[in-house]
Amino acid sequence: MIRNAEIIAVGSELLLGQICNSNAQFLSKQLAELGVNVYYHTVVGDNSTRLRDAINTAKQRSNLLIFTGGLGPTKDDLTKETIAEVLGKRLVMDEEAMSNIKAYFEKSQRKMSENNKKQALVLEGSSVLTNDYGMAPGMALSDETHTYMLLPGPPKELQPMFRHYGREFLLEKLGVKEQIVSKVLRFFGIGESQLETDIEDLIDNQTNPTIAPLAGDNEVTLRLTAKHHSIEEANRLIQQSETEILERVGEFFFGYDEDTIYSVVFNKIQQSSFTLSSAESLTGGLFSERMTSFTGASEVIEGAIVSYTNDVKEKVLGVQKQTLEQDGAVSAKSAEEMAQGVKKLLKTDIGISFTGVAGPGTMDNQPVGTVYIGIALPDGNTVVHKLQLAGTREGIKHRSAKYGCHLLLKELFK
Amino acid sequence: MIRNAEIIAVGSELLLGQICNSNAQFLSKQLAELGVNVYYHTVVGDNSTRLRDAINTAKQRSNLLIFTGGLGPTKDDLTKETIAEVLGKRLVMDEEAMSNIKAYFEKSQRKMSENNKKQALVLEGSSVLTNDYGMAPGMALSDETHTYMLLPGPPKELQPMFRHYGREFLLEKLGVKEQIVSKVLRFFGIGESQLETDIEDLIDNQTNPTIAPLAGDNEVTLRLTAKHHSIEEANRLIQQSETEILERVGEFFFGYDEDTIYSVVFNKIQQSSFTLSSAESLTGGLFSERMTSFTGASEVIEGAIVSYTNDVKEKVLGVQKQTLEQDGAVSAKSAEEMAQGVKKLLKTDIGISFTGVAGPGTMDNQPVGTVYIGIALPDGNTVVHKLQLAGTREGIKHRSAKYGCHLLLKELFK
Repeated sequence: MIRNAEIIAVGSELLLGQICNSNAQFLSKQLAELGVNVYYHTVVGDNSTRLRDAINTAKQRSNLLIFTGGLGPTKDDLTKETIAEVLGKRLVMDEEAMSNIKAYFEKSQRKMSENNKKQALVLEGSSVLTNDYGMAPGMALSDETHTYMLLPGPPKELQPMFRHYGREFLLEKLGVKEQIVSKVLRFFGIGESQLETDIEDLIDNQTNPTIAPLAGDNEVTLRLTAKHHSIEEANRLIQQSETEILERVGEFFFGYDEDTIYSVVFNKIQQSSFTLSSAESLTGGLFSERMTSFTGASEVIEGAIVSYTNDVKEKVLGVQKQTLEQDGAVSAKSAEEMAQGVKKLLKTDIGISFTGVAGPGTMDNQPVGTVYIGIALPDGNTVVHKLQLAGTREGIKHRSAKYGCHLLLKELFK
Repeated sequence: MIRNAEIIAVGSELLLGQICNSNAQFLSKQLAELGVNVYYHTVVGDNSTRLRDAINTAKQRSNLLIFTGGLGPTKDDLTKETIAEVLGKRLVMDEEAMSNIKAYFEKSQRKMSENNKKQALVLEGSSVLTNDYGMAPGMALSDETHTYMLLPGPPKELQPMFRHYGREFLLEKLGVKEQIVSKVLRFFGIGESQLETDIEDLIDNQTNPTIAPLAGDNEVTLRLTAKHHSIEEANRLIQQSETEILERVGEFFFGYDEDTIYSVVFNKIQQSSFTLSSAESLTGGLFSERMTSFTGASEVIEGAIVSYTNDVKEKVLGVQKQTLEQDGAVSAKSAEEMAQGVKKLLKTDIGISFTGVAGPGTMDNQPVGTVYIGIALPDGNTVVHKLQLAGTREGIKHRSAKYGCHLLLKELFK
């Protein structure tokens, strides 16, 4: 029976302050959702004596030990070797992991070095946790008193491994009877404090589901978490709460869970069989890059023109010389003609344009953060929105691209 | 004498995953610069029994213990109370801290509550570390065997307190005469294990500077850290080691410290007064977006054509119909004509093109990860490189864009 957990990160880069222990944060959140109390985090370097001591200390005070890092191919990587030694277990070759590693090298046409074979060794008797995004497999095993889980260090390998395999292993160990259902609602265009104020009474008074707000990158999310022995009932509780929330702040809502505002817009445009192109000055290709990140992008995206100079705006996109001279490149008129120009040039149903001042310098006497977004719609109309944004150069670019998505949703799908 | 350190963060919010332990990262970096080895990080909740156990464990293995958090006014805050108990010391009122707290309340015109007085209590015999950005004072004290430092949890209070007062205290304790200099070397196009193999003898045998490899996002870094009482000599030791390393793996080296491969390429092109444009199919605008992220981008970047369809490749970039039909869009010939086309259309000195299969589906019978990068050079020549990459769709896009930078460096500046 799992009583309490300790997360042990192995890696000298943590003790040198090169990276932050975000794995401990991720796992702590995940364990909290499973109802497991985390009593300690420990970080120890790539040193087998100190790691052994840390394991022995942890065993005395916790009975679920989750290790992160130290599963790589180099001789600094000694997590599983040290655990094997402490538990008196052998390391054995896992055939599936080995063929996964071989496939990785074949695919990238690189030569496998001898030390990569080490990565396929797992603790005897452990359940192997597949690594879908890297070479080192994870593993989990239990004896009479303790449960051990070993996960790779890179977050992009660790997170999917835990979500897809590690969590399952623990749920079974925990014999969880109560179903926990959670759902994230995502909002754009409203601040965290405004959203919290608008639904304060729901946040304060509701306990099932609980409602937890979190400010993210240019967006705000609400995580609803319901518990019930019937999964249908847990889902019904979530649905009811969601309806109440969206009645108040639905205009800013764009999606659920792993949705991004880009993925939502992409999917809606794909479903409508529209095609899309972009004319980007301020954003430098960011909108196009995000939109082409999805499988099936070639059905939706014809292309984009990044028009960083007036010459390209005029010669390629067909913005009038007069507009550039009289209104300037950062103006409603330029945004309009850019959107229409790219729509016509690339023969798409929708053209979207971004022009503005990302800073640090001003342009055309416009202050930093002035942004115009033009949308040439399938019906032949063109709309232009003006924004005034704050933040860094990078921040203004990203916020503008996301605003473009927000406006596409508003103009086309609401 | 301080031998090695342990950083103990106190706070249940860390164990719930609400925040990342960035204080440990900050302090680890600071201590590394002072030449103090950090052997462990520990996180423990707001629980006096478990904190007491953590202190006793830490005392056995480290002789500098730095505590963060738990100095606030609420009853959850019990760091100094627990340390007082373990060390057998009393807590005494510090007048300066008290008047600081009173001033704080007067300034904000709020009423001071009784529990705020608790914040002015410090460990008997300790040096008080002034809090210039909050109410809770820090403190530091040494006995025959150990040194203890207590710092507040909020980073905006902790960081200036350590920089201005805590560091001084430690420097005096350390009797530091030695200067520490460190430098990061960055490499692209070589794997971590290959790099380690190539310079294994240097990593193993050199102690001043030490050489620490770290794998990052599509790149590998080496951190060199030298110690010497003369800063010139420390720099000379680093320089000597750098030369030895670059003699072996210099072809993959691109920059130092905070450099990125994009910033290095951007700066070199800017210094050469060249202009650049890109024709992007596979990368969807990513290369252009990254290149326009730097201040002064408009001097270097004219624009980009994202040609996601053959129609755009042909009509806008002028790739020959015959090339697209016979060789396919993912081919050396297409890459060549795309690079030449964009260079001509946007009238730049250099044109770079990206075409390939990001997956998940194959294209033109080419496997996922097949990438062609074309570079139309200022002298009129065009070179094309073929790559075979592994990974996710996003991974292949990012790696391709960085490879483009790597090739620009190779073709233009080596």
